[in-house]
Amino acid sequence: MGADIRDIDTVRLNETEDAIEIIDQTLLPEKIEVLSLADQHDIWHAIHLLQVRGAPAIGITAGFALYLAAREIAGEMLCDSSGHVTKSRFFKKLTEAKEYLNSSRPTAVNLSWALNRVEAAAKDYCDSLKSCDIDSIKEMIDVMKNEAVEIYEEDIRVCKKIGEHALTLVNKGDGLITHCNAGKLATVRYGTATSVMYLGQEKGYDFKIYCDETRPLLQGARLTAFELAASGMDVTLLCDNMSASLMSTGKINAAFVGCDRVAANGDTANKIGTSMLALAAKRNNVPFYVCAPTSTIDMNTKSGKDIVIEQRGADEVTHMWYKHPVAPDGIKVYNPSFDVTDADLITGIITEKGIIKAPFEKGLKELFK
Amino acid sequence: MGADIRDIDTVRLNETEDAIEIIDQTLLPEKIEVLSLADQHDIWHAIHLLQVRGAPAIGITAGFALYLAAREIAGEMLCDSSGHVTKSRFFKKLTEAKEYLNSSRPTAVNLSWALNRVEAAAKDYCDSLKSCDIDSIKEMIDVMKNEAVEIYEEDIRVCKKIGEHALTLVNKGDGLITHCNAGKLATVRYGTATSVMYLGQEKGYDFKIYCDETRPLLQGARLTAFELAASGMDVTLLCDNMSASLMSTGKINAAFVGCDRVAANGDTANKIGTSMLALAAKRNNVPFYVCAPTSTIDMNTKSGKDIVIEQRGADEVTHMWYKHPVAPDGIKVYNPSFDVTDADLITGIITEKGIIKAPFEKGLKELFK
Repeated sequence: MGADIRDIDTVRLNETEDAIEIIDQTLLPEKIEVLSLADQHDIWHAIHLLQVRGAPAIGITAGFALYLAAREIAGEMLCDSSGHVTKSRFFKKLTEAKEYLNSSRPTAVNLSWALNRVEAAAKDYCDSLKSCDIDSIKEMIDVMKNEAVEIYEEDIRVCKKIGEHALTLVNKGDGLITHCNAGKLATVRYGTATSVMYLGQEKGYDFKIYCDETRPLLQGARLTAFELAASGMDVTLLCDNMSASLMSTGKINAAFVGCDRVAANGDTANKIGTSMLALAAKRNNVPFYVCAPTSTIDMNTKSGKDIVIEQRGADEVTHMWYKHPVAPDGIKVYNPSFDVTDADLITGIITEKGIIKAPFEKGLKELFK
Repeated sequence: MGADIRDIDTVRLNETEDAIEIIDQTLLPEKIEVLSLADQHDIWHAIHLLQVRGAPAIGITAGFALYLAAREIAGEMLCDSSGHVTKSRFFKKLTEAKEYLNSSRPTAVNLSWALNRVEAAAKDYCDSLKSCDIDSIKEMIDVMKNEAVEIYEEDIRVCKKIGEHALTLVNKGDGLITHCNAGKLATVRYGTATSVMYLGQEKGYDFKIYCDETRPLLQGARLTAFELAASGMDVTLLCDNMSASLMSTGKINAAFVGCDRVAANGDTANKIGTSMLALAAKRNNVPFYVCAPTSTIDMNTKSGKDIVIEQRGADEVTHMWYKHPVAPDGIKVYNPSFDVTDADLITGIITEKGIIKAPFEKGLKELFK
């Protein structure tokens, strides 16, 4: 494998601050390769082709990408025949770059969120100026860089905090199960659901980790089992339909999963299959924890019923990762991307600010006071 | 595809009664090819390589195979230099053939059950004779053929009866879900869990059928979705982790599954993942039915706790059907073949003799009175 994944962030700004470095996730689990990308088009393709994936990691990539785009725009403006730099010309081109980057994965909320945040930082700075010249544009680009770095650093802080809280819920030697990839590879360094595992490893907890493979796209097998095993943990892989059987053996002490959105009543949308893991956990008295940065809690969504679930293409199911058919030609397919885990199946929601237990409606309201 | 699967039994004796014809299931869903096999070694390999699979279909194949072996043995004995036929020589060779055939898939109970049944028919007939000559050997081979044909015909009768009972539990247009392959391809013609679907189709019920793909070996995708779609039904495929999501949409009216063993208290061992489908059904108030020929009900097994679950190899999970790796090299794997569905999750057990509802312990006891 060469490189040690423990030493590499999933995404980061390089030392000379003129490119980002990402782990190419399409090559995993066979090869760890770090790509250095400076050009907007290259970054667009990296997001589009899932070389970088996972909501937080996409957001961080996009933040850095807009900063790099701003550098490029300013450079071009200085080089053109007029040599004239204006706010309006700069922001027109920046908006174009933002829209272009945002089109790489249109349904990823973190993508537009990070792009808007870095753009807003630039605009706020610019609004505070009386006039705008090339020096102030340069300062503004620095402001954008700092905002992008802050998104990156926030992710590390938030994930670490979630792991610290989660660690209070488990014991040395515990068997822990997770679903899909809410790991380092979906964030920068700790992951959300995996943060407790990384921090526990640092403290010698010797967890036994079990990963659902997570059909159809096998993120659990290809990414989570990979990143945890590559970090030296004791990892066992299972098919999604085996978790109830596994729990009935008494080997699992807790389940930790990530989430795409938590509603105001605690209902949680996460990768398809999460709700079945939760049913198996409830049946076997295994505590089931959702790891949720407060940014994923949406108080405007009343319950799981209000969450629209994306349906995806048939060939993800009928053709395996390596594109061989495993089902009759032309068969109809039900392939939802996510499911909703009802709040009554959830033992606790772990945020960077602490652990919320039932009744979730009350606990979540207090969190946002 | 060429051949129409509706016109072909999964396994049957050919018209000249000197070979069996089986659908080669390793070529499905891409190609329907019927193999004609007369030689013991060819039949051994067909069972071993899963060209024929499914407990009842294996039993039927084995029954015919021992009859064909007896023909071969008698023929060889007539041709040898002495031309001498004796009971003891014949049965010695028949036992060798039985043991050889039984080694093709040692854990398949139906295999040894059918071999013993056809051998016992021969012995019973032989014991009834005063002396044994070549004519009586020929008559005995006829007895064996009839016993093997009876196993085959019993399967068709039992499966059809199960379907008739099951049909009283559903309505026209219902959405039905099943797991793994308890279909025609596991039996001769109707299957157990699929019998209600085939009989319903004959009567114009217009069911919407949903098939779990059934990881790791994808029998649901490759076999069940195939055989039902090839028979002209409205079939939708889903990953195992999607059934709770599907049921929450209200599209499923009942679940029908097969079984490997039903304990005296109703606990049911079936393909891994069945218990999670049952949990999803319970949660969504979908009735969950186990289709169980009385031959699979084991009153000597008190409960599911007494059923030993076979653990299978890692590469079934880490390497997909077409042998490409989808998980890190050397990762540990939990891969049980079956799981146990607790009786309280089961709405009814459908046998050829009728439908048993809770309390199952009482109902099953009465069934065997």
